[in-house]
Amino acid sequence: MGSSSANIFKNFKEHSIAEFFKKNKQMLGFSGKVRSLTMIVHEYITNSLDAAEEASILPEIDVQIQEVGPNYKVSVQDNGPGIPKKHLAKALGQMLTGTKFHRFMQQRGQQGIGAAGCTLFAQLTSGKPIYVVSEYDELRIKCNIAIDIQTNTPVITNEIIEENKEGKHGLYIEGYFGDVKYDRSSQGPLEYIKRTALANPHLTISLLEPTGERITFSRSSDVVPPKIEETLPHPLGIGVADLVDLAHKEKEEKTLKNFFQKRFQRFSLQKVEELKALVDGTKEGIGFVDLLKDPKELKWEEAEALIKAFAQIKWIAPSADCLRPIGPERIQASLVHILAPDFLAIAQRPRKIYKGGYPFMVETAIAWGGHAGRRLANSEVTYDVIRYANCAPLIFDSYACAITQAVKEIDWKRYGIKDIEHEPLTIFVNFISVYVPYISTGKQAISPEEEVYQEIKYSIMDAARRLQLYISGINREKEIQNRRNVIMRYISQVSKDLAELAEIKDYLPIEQKLKEITQTRYMTKLLTEENEEEPEQQEKNKKEQNGLENHEEKEKEDG
Amino acid sequence: MGSSSANIFKNFKEHSIAEFFKKNKQMLGFSGKVRSLTMIVHEYITNSLDAAEEASILPEIDVQIQEVGPNYKVSVQDNGPGIPKKHLAKALGQMLTGTKFHRFMQQRGQQGIGAAGCTLFAQLTSGKPIYVVSEYDELRIKCNIAIDIQTNTPVITNEIIEENKEGKHGLYIEGYFGDVKYDRSSQGPLEYIKRTALANPHLTISLLEPTGERITFSRSSDVVPPKIEETLPHPLGIGVADLVDLAHKEKEEKTLKNFFQKRFQRFSLQKVEELKALVDGTKEGIGFVDLLKDPKELKWEEAEALIKAFAQIKWIAPSADCLRPIGPERIQASLVHILAPDFLAIAQRPRKIYKGGYPFMVETAIAWGGHAGRRLANSEVTYDVIRYANCAPLIFDSYACAITQAVKEIDWKRYGIKDIEHEPLTIFVNFISVYVPYISTGKQAISPEEEVYQEIKYSIMDAARRLQLYISGINREKEIQNRRNVIMRYISQVSKDLAELAEIKDYLPIEQKLKEITQTRYMTKLLTEENEEEPEQQEKNKKEQNGLENHEEKEKEDG
Repeated sequence: MGSSSANIFKNFKEHSIAEFFKKNKQMLGFSGKVRSLTMIVHEYITNSLDAAEEASILPEIDVQIQEVGPNYKVSVQDNGPGIPKKHLAKALGQMLTGTKFHRFMQQRGQQGIGAAGCTLFAQLTSGKPIYVVSEYDELRIKCNIAIDIQTNTPVITNEIIEENKEGKHGLYIEGYFGDVKYDRSSQGPLEYIKRTALANPHLTISLLEPTGERITFSRSSDVVPPKIEETLPHPLGIGVADLVDLAHKEKEEKTLKNFFQKRFQRFSLQKVEELKALVDGTKEGIGFVDLLKDPKELKWEEAEALIKAFAQIKWIAPSADCLRPIGPERIQASLVHILAPDFLAIAQRPRKIYKGGYPFMVETAIAWGGHAGRRLANSEVTYDVIRYANCAPLIFDSYACAITQAVKEIDWKRYGIKDIEHEPLTIFVNFISVYVPYISTGKQAISPEEEVYQEIKYSIMDAARRLQLYISGINREKEIQNRRNVIMRYISQVSKDLAELAEIKDYLPIEQKLKEITQTRYMTKLLTEENEEEPEQQEKNKKEQNGLENHEEKEKEDG
Repeated sequence: MGSSSANIFKNFKEHSIAEFFKKNKQMLGFSGKVRSLTMIVHEYITNSLDAAEEASILPEIDVQIQEVGPNYKVSVQDNGPGIPKKHLAKALGQMLTGTKFHRFMQQRGQQGIGAAGCTLFAQLTSGKPIYVVSEYDELRIKCNIAIDIQTNTPVITNEIIEENKEGKHGLYIEGYFGDVKYDRSSQGPLEYIKRTALANPHLTISLLEPTGERITFSRSSDVVPPKIEETLPHPLGIGVADLVDLAHKEKEEKTLKNFFQKRFQRFSLQKVEELKALVDGTKEGIGFVDLLKDPKELKWEEAEALIKAFAQIKWIAPSADCLRPIGPERIQASLVHILAPDFLAIAQRPRKIYKGGYPFMVETAIAWGGHAGRRLANSEVTYDVIRYANCAPLIFDSYACAITQAVKEIDWKRYGIKDIEHEPLTIFVNFISVYVPYISTGKQAISPEEEVYQEIKYSIMDAARRLQLYISGINREKEIQNRRNVIMRYISQVSKDLAELAEIKDYLPIEQKLKEITQTRYMTKLLTEENEEEPEQQEKNKKEQNGLENHEEKEKEDG
């Protein structure tokens, strides 16, 4: 043996998450100069939007990007609630902290890494801390924040605390970043901001470009979106480990029975009775569990039995209170405004859940014609996919995203799209959930988890079906137009012949009548022809009914 | 304002990296049942191989996978150096610990997350800790290890410490995992192990499948690969932040001058003089730096000046000691053994560096014909890309990988491959470096950093050029064969006519002579026709010369 084990392990060390990401910047999305700049803008904007929403404020965000020597200076001012002194340093100078990680709630951010990641990136590329001004309640705090990389703790310098007599509120962040570059490409900050505006009609956002040009996207809706509520987990989605965890952390409830009713949604007394019957020890494959047991004493095997039993109970679908889709009207307004398409199909499907008890929904719109699609350099048009997760645009890593993969797997020919590579088609998909399964800390692609992937695909197919009606409509109308034209050509002669036969002098009224009949007949045919449901659609409907009752009426009766 | 800032931030919390990955398992590659199982096998095997290499042991690994109730039991026994008691618990029960993270050295693992991630995954899916037996020096330790998720610290139970009189060494890990599945698909553990064997000819590895079948890949080489050395950073690649970091951590050297000579490679006295001349404050765009200054006092601006000056000095390429390619002979032996191709082209290019001062190399082989390529369900053949990072197979996330992207961007028609989708082609690429820029913690795709991506592409193009000679050879040979056949058909008649003209009775010697001339002429033509260098190749050669002197002779003279 060349080296003894002790010798080999002499380098054994512990390191901090900040050190980890210092070495692996690309895992935070900081790879490539343009992408890095867009990621910075992305992190700050999503935080601003989340904060404004939680404080029920109509968000206004001002982004400024300037070239300063070898670096870029990026500043973002919002009108949100600000961050209190107590949390300011950690929120921006320590990774894995924040308000979002443990909550069961639809938010753009969820990791507690993003903003502190930007601070780290500033430090690593320009050597400068970030500068922050937080205004809230009665205070205004100004300071510089850096990260002590070895310990992952914040370092505050130049702190000034002032009275905030005017009662202003908001957060201003300013950082100097090297290894970044501004451009107007489809992956640059401007496109990111445009897409953010598209999915957030209540937002006013402006960008000052390094050239000095200012671009503003004004809000199209003055309504503060209803506040999103935190929600309880749904019994159908939760896993064994999560159940054991929750039970062991329970502090108030002393029996499993009460614990279930208090900590889960849809767990009525009736459901407790159904569960009791299933875990009484007589059912094959399900062990005995005493529902009067203290949750803190729950064993792994018991949790396994409970999860198995949950799967055999018919549950009401998870509450939609916690999910806030953009909504078809707003999507339509946005897309019509920006793309002016010839046709727009929107699919709105009921909420679903996926493993871990996470409710989610997919909103899809397909625009065809007008400015839809993407213009290529050779002035040809191809299809475009615009992806969102909780209304935040996903710009990068499209190849890895469940949305892109679903679009690619769909047999578009079945929907009358003969060659999708050459169609003026924009496919808009917004995935909303209390937890978005990102493939990496860069948060730019949705992991194709089975339920998630299927639902995204069905949603796009739904919209595609509506599009098909339009496209086949165009084709059929063309055909009918042809037939009509043929008949119309002879109508004049036929009218004259008829008039002669009937010994009427004026053939014009007959001609007029015949024209009306011809037009009406072919019009009616167009409108009454039925659209057959596809086998795929039928199969899908069957699947949807499995395990979930989607009727709101049942809810009242039961809940 | 709906909520005060303090109220919104009442949920502000810190969480551990273990909690983070508990919620984001897919970021460790644990998404999909088959993939999750392959990831487990991957983490254990790479650790075993790294440890064996460092201890100069010929590795033998035994992997067993069994179905046990709803779970799979996975065990891996190696003959490596074992892990000492002091580090065992942290190595397997705490994330972001290990021997590899801080080292400048070619290794398969580098994150200090993998094995502890498996422990976490076992806990979350089966509720069971892992069981470990570590044999080393005079001890044998048996114990169960789990992770305390909230604190990211190891929990040891049932520890037994025995004397190891036989002096055995090795590590045995056994875990129960739910939410996984075994199959023989191209993303399953068997394919992973097969690919590992392909790139590690000194390894003997066997797999016991859940069906009870045992598959063994025996080593084809008995030579223990030379030990890989740690290396010093190269001045050309290092960034400002890293330079400041290294300088501030310096404990022995009291001047920048000595610090550079001691802590960097290729930093001869002559280079110090060149540097001194560049940072004397008279050069435009480069500030003054006193090289007699204490490294601990180095300021960011000074580091910036130094990095700018580094870029203007001609350096010797980084030492290759720290990189150990598989080597063309071994690649050839492996590929011929497994694929039996009609043609094999191998490209071996000089080492390069990329940002951060990381030396790297790309080895590429292209196999054509035989069993090369991938068989599709319809029995057609298409091309296959086999990717490695430091000899560890990359099975997933191929769409995101620099290797796959390079293959896709190459214009294969230029290399005589008319339709790559239908060619029996296997492209084998091994990326080796002291640091692999993975796109995510799942470690299955190489981030397309500019220098890395370019070099991978050039390497594949190099091999493709060799392949082209072969393919154009096939085509030309066919053409020549045709022409020869045409001439041969007339040779008999011509010989007779010539014999008659020359009044020779026996035309056979003439016929023989003519045949020889015909054959030789077309043979010679085939062999002497020159292959023109492509513009791309010329451009590439130019690029390679920029900033780096690739001549080993210079090294002696200077270093």
